[in-house]
Amino acid sequence: MRFSTAFIPTLRQKPKEAEAVSHKLMVRSGMVRRLTSGIYCYLPLGWKVLKKVIDIVREEMDKTGAQEVLLPAIHPIELWEKTGRVHDLGDDMIKFKNRSDRIMALGPTHEEVITWLVAGEVHSYKQLPVILYQIQTKFRDEPRPRFGVIRTCEFIMKDAYSFHTDWDSLDIAYNEMYSAYSRIFERCGLDFVIVEADPGVMGGDVSHEFMALSQYGEDKVVVCSKCDYRTSLEIAERKPPEIEIREKTFKEIKEVHTPGISSVEDVSRFLNVSPQQLLKTIIYKAGDKFIAALVSGDKEINEVKLRRHLGVKELRMAEPDEIKNITGAEVGFSGPVGLKVKKIADYDVEEMSNFVTGANKTDYHLKNVNIGRDFKIDEYADIRYVQQGDNCPKCGEKLEIKNAIEIGHIFKLGTKYSQPLNAIFLDEKGKEHPIIMGCYGIGINRIIASYIEQNYDDKGIIWNRELTPFQFVIIPINMSDERIKTKAEEIYQFLMEKGCEVLYDDRDLRAGIKFNDAELIGIPEQIIIGDKYLKEGKIELKSRRTRESRLLSGPEDILTSLSAG
Amino acid sequence: MRFSTAFIPTLRQKPKEAEAVSHKLMVRSGMVRRLTSGIYCYLPLGWKVLKKVIDIVREEMDKTGAQEVLLPAIHPIELWEKTGRVHDLGDDMIKFKNRSDRIMALGPTHEEVITWLVAGEVHSYKQLPVILYQIQTKFRDEPRPRFGVIRTCEFIMKDAYSFHTDWDSLDIAYNEMYSAYSRIFERCGLDFVIVEADPGVMGGDVSHEFMALSQYGEDKVVVCSKCDYRTSLEIAERKPPEIEIREKTFKEIKEVHTPGISSVEDVSRFLNVSPQQLLKTIIYKAGDKFIAALVSGDKEINEVKLRRHLGVKELRMAEPDEIKNITGAEVGFSGPVGLKVKKIADYDVEEMSNFVTGANKTDYHLKNVNIGRDFKIDEYADIRYVQQGDNCPKCGEKLEIKNAIEIGHIFKLGTKYSQPLNAIFLDEKGKEHPIIMGCYGIGINRIIASYIEQNYDDKGIIWNRELTPFQFVIIPINMSDERIKTKAEEIYQFLMEKGCEVLYDDRDLRAGIKFNDAELIGIPEQIIIGDKYLKEGKIELKSRRTRESRLLSGPEDILTSLSAG
Repeated sequence: MRFSTAFIPTLRQKPKEAEAVSHKLMVRSGMVRRLTSGIYCYLPLGWKVLKKVIDIVREEMDKTGAQEVLLPAIHPIELWEKTGRVHDLGDDMIKFKNRSDRIMALGPTHEEVITWLVAGEVHSYKQLPVILYQIQTKFRDEPRPRFGVIRTCEFIMKDAYSFHTDWDSLDIAYNEMYSAYSRIFERCGLDFVIVEADPGVMGGDVSHEFMALSQYGEDKVVVCSKCDYRTSLEIAERKPPEIEIREKTFKEIKEVHTPGISSVEDVSRFLNVSPQQLLKTIIYKAGDKFIAALVSGDKEINEVKLRRHLGVKELRMAEPDEIKNITGAEVGFSGPVGLKVKKIADYDVEEMSNFVTGANKTDYHLKNVNIGRDFKIDEYADIRYVQQGDNCPKCGEKLEIKNAIEIGHIFKLGTKYSQPLNAIFLDEKGKEHPIIMGCYGIGINRIIASYIEQNYDDKGIIWNRELTPFQFVIIPINMSDERIKTKAEEIYQFLMEKGCEVLYDDRDLRAGIKFNDAELIGIPEQIIIGDKYLKEGKIELKSRRTRESRLLSGPEDILTSLSAG
Repeated sequence: MRFSTAFIPTLRQKPKEAEAVSHKLMVRSGMVRRLTSGIYCYLPLGWKVLKKVIDIVREEMDKTGAQEVLLPAIHPIELWEKTGRVHDLGDDMIKFKNRSDRIMALGPTHEEVITWLVAGEVHSYKQLPVILYQIQTKFRDEPRPRFGVIRTCEFIMKDAYSFHTDWDSLDIAYNEMYSAYSRIFERCGLDFVIVEADPGVMGGDVSHEFMALSQYGEDKVVVCSKCDYRTSLEIAERKPPEIEIREKTFKEIKEVHTPGISSVEDVSRFLNVSPQQLLKTIIYKAGDKFIAALVSGDKEINEVKLRRHLGVKELRMAEPDEIKNITGAEVGFSGPVGLKVKKIADYDVEEMSNFVTGANKTDYHLKNVNIGRDFKIDEYADIRYVQQGDNCPKCGEKLEIKNAIEIGHIFKLGTKYSQPLNAIFLDEKGKEHPIIMGCYGIGINRIIASYIEQNYDDKGIIWNRELTPFQFVIIPINMSDERIKTKAEEIYQFLMEKGCEVLYDDRDLRAGIKFNDAELIGIPEQIIIGDKYLKEGKIELKSRRTRESRLLSGPEDILTSLSAG
């Protein structure tokens, strides 16, 4: 492609609205333009890269035997009502009334539609297993679109769904997808970790996230500094700390008046104690019972871990009236002393002494509270979020917390969708069972942003050979020098005939501008044609990443030089 | 692909809801399933064909130098308000309120967004011309989705947009697109005609439609039985007929009482005359003037032709109060006698005599009206729809009217979008001009339906080599015969290694079922492996279209035989 006629509007200035590096570089290199909040146009350069990613994903999916389909974006709301997800997704799901006054949804994902489809066609164990996938546009009304194409309202997803007679068959597909995902992200050149995750709104039992490490990632992953333990912050565990009691003398318990003061911050300031000396008491409804979860004031309860520890399906914070019933006080004044419900404390709490708690009396707190003397803990457990420096549950070494972008997510769904949507098969004996399902997603657009977050320098993007929009950029230093221009044309024609993807910068501009654009766009190999070397019959081949140059005699040398390098 | 594990749910029975042949066959062959009115799922077979069409379209677009982009489906409504098309499209456009209470539209087409994009990036004549295209999903809330994938609410379109400094440059791009479209539809194996059309809601001056002939087509094209005249019914013209006066004696004009009787049908029944003996008088507002258009009662006024004849931009029927002002009577009783506005009659009217018209008096008509004696015609013109048997305006031979499906449409838009959206360039002298535009659309899904409408028999679809989901289907007659099975596997492996697309029907089913499915799906070449010929070391290669068989010695012969055939 000739740069002079290409629609590649590069920008010198950084776009004001962009925070993330990938966002800035995608706008500056002319890959994308923002139409409105969370909605992007892919220009020719951006689309070329997107298509490279799509081709890799399709190739690896086809290798697994998954069969490609294309499902519609418009869904009847009734399907989403049957699974109850119309409520789970809330305002994230885009809905509209059609001209017949029927409510329709724009698919934020396709479990409902694919399960409906399979339910209508698959009736016998002989038709299973089957894996279907699509590469298709999803719609979500994001409350806070941000970081360019990382979090948007409209994006391309590869979503696959597998259907099985039993869990063993699902395991096989799940493992194949796990491997295919690893190959995809490796081919895309991403630095990623695979972490176990909580299935959340998708339902099911087992799930893994594929996370690209990046400072602008909105997710957190926990990585052991020594062993291979890596997981999402959501479910990361830690080795119980070795307890040392801070103060061995129990001071006398005192009730203090704290009018209208209830937050950790306010109480610690008012009583002049550190947040570590406060014990937070949160009342939860766990299944059909109420419990109290206790952590020190500087820590956060991890509800996923708490829910899993309790072995219940549903967990929610108690409502203000429920709290008043249980504690006798308004929200913010709960404490463990005299509390009738089961008390579960994080391991950390064991080493606390002479601490502050709510008094179960509105506007009052207790000072110098102590475990054992004033109340009993029913269970100690790991119920708070892991922090940097906690100990690895596997090897005991220090854990690190890193930002990451979720690029893939795989789930063992079980019968969460097949049951409400009546996707049933008959086994060999003619008995009915719901189909066992898995689902597997990849955020196509995010792969691009994640790659850029991991591969750039102060000049611009640094593409690898798999994702780059062009393999070569030809930069003639001076278009008014006929010898240079002729040589450049010759090389362009040669490489095009060889089927290479080439951007030929035939613009009559200063060499500096051409170099800047080439570096910004990030094409791996620059072919520089200048007076100095051309006199000796040489052209220069320069690597964008290593910045190393080689002098070559002619166009034929370019390809041999590359395959050798 | 092995049929035993493929998701190809063929049906023996015709789906009840299907009218069009293509719809029936796409459902029966397992290509598509209807999720809800106007919304379809593409199953693996359907997607394979869709992708073949997409690949052909992309290849031919890339050859023209058009650059591929991907624009979003969600558009801010403000862009559509600026061009006024939010009103033109009305309920066809799907709109929703996002969580910030902003009205967003789902793109039914992309003139607004692409013009916005180009307006932001192109500022100089040096950046022009540029042609951008995308292959992307469009959304329209169709009042009457029908004929399977021919008229749906969600469909894939290839839409291209060209941007120019002048009309000459637009003409070059327009002609290139015209040629590219012809190549695309030829490669897709379609029997199509190219007709001039009225640009309608898209605006602009010149437009051509590419129409696939089909009995279920919702559009009409007019084709000369002899010469190359072919055009849309909307603008088809005819040679003025040679006039012969039916009755030479003018009877006496009479006023008759026709209480509440005003439609052509009712008046002709009441007065016992044929509709041909009635003269319809329709009052229009043409630009800022009123005119009367006259045709005989059995013909329909073609408003596009009337508008073009008058040389006005806007034409609409007069409102009841306007009609009353002009004629002095209610709607349905207008007539030319004594009427003060300009009277334009179709050529046919010249040979009418002693006819019936409205009396310009509520509840009255006139009998035995005659031109010349009772009123004057200001102009004769070709203002009615062409009918089967009218004379070709070019060669005078008979015109034929055929049903057709619109598969492509190209428009010279001019500045219809660049002006309201402020897409301006500076010429060599630094003077501002609005960019001159063209736009070019292809309905991807309709290509498939149109192809099937033109290529089927009582057994099913008959694919050509460009669109077929598989080149070969291997049919072993009996899977429990080890020799047959081994041979089939061998051929399957051989063809797969050669990179062929093969459906291997390895199902343990009766041969009849396998043949029925192979014919229904319509794969061009059947490789039949049966006991009879295998004894002689032969396999059978049968053409789906010609039903001719050849006996071959081994898998190598299949490919040589094909390239020879």
